[in-house]
Amino acid sequence: MSDLKALVRSIPDYPKPGIIFRDVTTLFATPAGMRGIVEAMCAPFADETFDCIAGIDARGFILGGAMAVRMGTGFVPIRKKGKLPANVYREEYSLEYGTDEVEIHVDALPVGSRVLLVDDLLATGGTALASIKLIERAGGTVPAAAFAIDLPDLGGSRALRAKGVEVYTVMDFEGD
Amino acid sequence: MSDLKALVRSIPDYPKPGIIFRDVTTLFATPAGMRGIVEAMCAPFADETFDCIAGIDARGFILGGAMAVRMGTGFVPIRKKGKLPANVYREEYSLEYGTDEVEIHVDALPVGSRVLLVDDLLATGGTALASIKLIERAGGTVPAAAFAIDLPDLGGSRALRAKGVEVYTVMDFEGD
Repeated sequence: MSDLKALVRSIPDYPKPGIIFRDVTTLFATPAGMRGIVEAMCAPFADETFDCIAGIDARGFILGGAMAVRMGTGFVPIRKKGKLPANVYREEYSLEYGTDEVEIHVDALPVGSRVLLVDDLLATGGTALASIKLIERAGGTVPAAAFAIDLPDLGGSRALRAKGVEVYTVMDFEGD
Repeated sequence: MSDLKALVRSIPDYPKPGIIFRDVTTLFATPAGMRGIVEAMCAPFADETFDCIAGIDARGFILGGAMAVRMGTGFVPIRKKGKLPANVYREEYSLEYGTDEVEIHVDALPVGSRVLLVDDLLATGGTALASIKLIERAGGTVPAAAFAIDLPDLGGSRALRAKGVEVYTVMDFEGD
């Protein structure tokens, strides 16, 4: 995976001083990077079946749509507040300062759907945990989640595993 | 394509009275719908090569990421203002009331890249035309654009073709 990791751009002091932002746009921009990251994120699930992929707004859509077609599942968006046109469930999660909210359509999933949660990056896991609550409220279960990048020092993978979710990540950046 | 069209949900009076919103989340939610729409949007380009797909924030990401993997290209995001971490070009476009802005990374594309522009829906074409300007400023060309849905009464496909862009759409909703 080191060839994929080398395609991620690190931007110091973004979005604020002291933070290193891991920018996947440079990974997605090359054919080998785009195909490679999608294949690497699908690979752990070769022997599992899911009814759908849930992708988190917005970079999770780029990966999740591609994974859904590759794995032969449907795709369900988890969106920022106010973006979905029909009735929604909403969950709040904490940011460093304040809170934000994510939503899912109430009727997004057939009851009992096995859902694979997908995003580009796992940090504290706040958005992912809120997304899992939404999927469960909509009648689904989340046996597993896949991320291109893990920032292990921030504890998100530990928090998700504590909820019984299998967590797969393609590459780590430590010290974040 | 009528089976795909039947999977699109029409929501009356959203986002405001008199507008019928064409909701693709119900199309994407089923395996046959997700795979079918991506295959239908790739099919016209079987004999053409592109260096990358540019997807428009955010539903264009779901389709564009999947199309990039299927067609063996890179993927470049066109984002709403303030979402990209590195240096950007920005273009304003008109909404019914006021304006909005989209951005692309200055270094998103190798110079001379042939880019296929992708979004879920073509209405007036304002966002698509602004996106084409961004891609051209970043050094690319846009010979073609693909959309799941066309609202032909709103004139977007005519406006794009007037700029020399080949336009492919999978389904129409007239009377919007």
